[in-house]
Amino acid sequence: MSAGTTGPVRVVGTGLLGASVGLALRALGVDVVLADPSRTALALARDVGAGRPAAPDDEEPALVVVAAPPDVTADVVAAELAAHPGAVVTDLASVKGYVLDELRASGADLTRYVGSHPMAGRERSGPSAAVPDLFLGRPWVLASTEVTRPDAVLAVRSLAVDLGAVPVTLDAGAHDEAVALVSHVPQVVASLAAARLAGADDVALGLAGQGLRDVTRIAASDPALWTSILAANAGAVRDVLVAVRSDLDGVIDALALAAAATGPETVAPGALATIAQAVADGNTGVARIPGKHGGAQRSYALVTVLVPDAPGELARLLTEVGEAGVNLEDLHLEHAAGRPVGMAQISVLPGSAAHLEAELTARGWRLVS
Amino acid sequence: MSAGTTGPVRVVGTGLLGASVGLALRALGVDVVLADPSRTALALARDVGAGRPAAPDDEEPALVVVAAPPDVTADVVAAELAAHPGAVVTDLASVKGYVLDELRASGADLTRYVGSHPMAGRERSGPSAAVPDLFLGRPWVLASTEVTRPDAVLAVRSLAVDLGAVPVTLDAGAHDEAVALVSHVPQVVASLAAARLAGADDVALGLAGQGLRDVTRIAASDPALWTSILAANAGAVRDVLVAVRSDLDGVIDALALAAAATGPETVAPGALATIAQAVADGNTGVARIPGKHGGAQRSYALVTVLVPDAPGELARLLTEVGEAGVNLEDLHLEHAAGRPVGMAQISVLPGSAAHLEAELTARGWRLVS
Repeated sequence: MSAGTTGPVRVVGTGLLGASVGLALRALGVDVVLADPSRTALALARDVGAGRPAAPDDEEPALVVVAAPPDVTADVVAAELAAHPGAVVTDLASVKGYVLDELRASGADLTRYVGSHPMAGRERSGPSAAVPDLFLGRPWVLASTEVTRPDAVLAVRSLAVDLGAVPVTLDAGAHDEAVALVSHVPQVVASLAAARLAGADDVALGLAGQGLRDVTRIAASDPALWTSILAANAGAVRDVLVAVRSDLDGVIDALALAAAATGPETVAPGALATIAQAVADGNTGVARIPGKHGGAQRSYALVTVLVPDAPGELARLLTEVGEAGVNLEDLHLEHAAGRPVGMAQISVLPGSAAHLEAELTARGWRLVS
Repeated sequence: MSAGTTGPVRVVGTGLLGASVGLALRALGVDVVLADPSRTALALARDVGAGRPAAPDDEEPALVVVAAPPDVTADVVAAELAAHPGAVVTDLASVKGYVLDELRASGADLTRYVGSHPMAGRERSGPSAAVPDLFLGRPWVLASTEVTRPDAVLAVRSLAVDLGAVPVTLDAGAHDEAVALVSHVPQVVASLAAARLAGADDVALGLAGQGLRDVTRIAASDPALWTSILAANAGAVRDVLVAVRSDLDGVIDALALAAAATGPETVAPGALATIAQAVADGNTGVARIPGKHGGAQRSYALVTVLVPDAPGELARLLTEVGEAGVNLEDLHLEHAAGRPVGMAQISVLPGSAAHLEAELTARGWRLVS
């Protein structure tokens, strides 16, 4: 560890996050001691190379990383602080205020505790899904308090940097409000929209396009994990959902007025404006999401290319994008059900779009742009 | 046209859809006559090769395609049916019941009218965005009524097939309920989630991940167009949104109970189950969306590979996927803000995943899977 500490790093909880931390630290030559209430998960984490089980004559750890589910995190952190009075302790739970409140109530020594949250995950879980690169390039939130010792903050910041993450300092409350907005509420909204499809008939579902797929992709997430996260951040998530419901009420009322009219002229005044404003507010919000280079998403131009569904075609396209001297900023491949052609949506800087379109056309590609 | 009709095809409305129909028909050698209330749009459509403006001595059209905004479609269809008593008339509006109701009220000759809706679109609009391949592989809904003549249905079905689309037969009401579910409600939900970001601070937005980007991507859509669509399908959209609100109410109430508790044990009975059920219902719904080959989305395995942000790296990856003999089913490239590494998420048939992972690892790629 670059913080100049000695002793092993102890990782408590060897699921996806804990085992990935272990793997990444092992790759840096750090001695990693693993602990998990599940003997199977512990053995699996050892087998994938995430570290070694604790032994009776172990040196005291310099740093303890608690990677437990949100609902047990505070108990585990408090126990580790007590068991290792010289160690800095951090946790990786995706909700921070709840953990901090419980720790305060427990009377734990908070001078050595730094709550943290790496914004990293995968669709698979458990130690077998662990990878050392999980944190590469991801924001890693550090939530210290007024009593946290500076060397404790430095130790956890060093952990984040060593694992390739980008440290972001936020207090626990600000963190929880932020993730409610950018992660927890989108999860709920995607789940609610997807739930409406459960009873749909197959013909209706056959009309689905990429828009529906995008909106509902994260609705495939694990219910048990998300119940734990949403319950632990219930206040902040509820506040945002109440605001969503208020906007939804407005749209529903406006649609009732539109449904009752015989044409646009006879829709009650204000109803159409309410609908338009809801869509326009969405425009404003989505434009604020940072893109790959920290700019707004809208700063890219989209070039869409038809790609035959044959081995090597997409690779050929991307090779030729590179040969055209154009840097691909983002790529999304879209397939139409039942057809042997896909569409590759290539995001490029706006100044490169015309050049790329000309180059690809000259090379025989069919553009949808 | 393969329906054996004679005379030109008349396209009324030369925006994205109308001009794309014109371009595709011109590519098949069909004489296309264009009309549009905007002289600029008409001239632009002619210039992109979508057809020619009407002339006084034109032969009567065999088929009229009305590609107008939903709120004026019925008026234009009725006028075209009256002006061209030998022609079959179709429209491409994204809402069908509203148009049909207005046509019935107008006393138009519905034996020659077939409502239709190609499930195709782009993020850009207008004749300059038109492409002949717009409809390739897309579902194209045909909504005839009990009075529609069989040859009229055949003519519009032939149009869809000639343009590469997949005809789907649905009555107007079933169509409108289906698109409310798979298109209009997802649009509203994405807009409402995105609207919450408008007032967020930059640090919170910096924590955004791919989930948020996916959920809110379509929130960038045009407010004027969507107001017209949502108002024209107000009843069906409202019905689904009322069901969404009911689920949302349940989640909000459950979160209030969770926020009031001191821990999972003290949450009022049923609250956690309500949250878990909402997420689980989303699982069920998203699993029903057909994938590329008509199967459920979950039938693919995801292999995630770290790709350096350098020219040619993604092309090299895809070349090597091809060399491994694995057919790529879908691809999504994900970038982390501020880092020179992207993640390519490759969907493959489950039986191919282990082989692909081994091949890519052997070739030096870093997997996150």
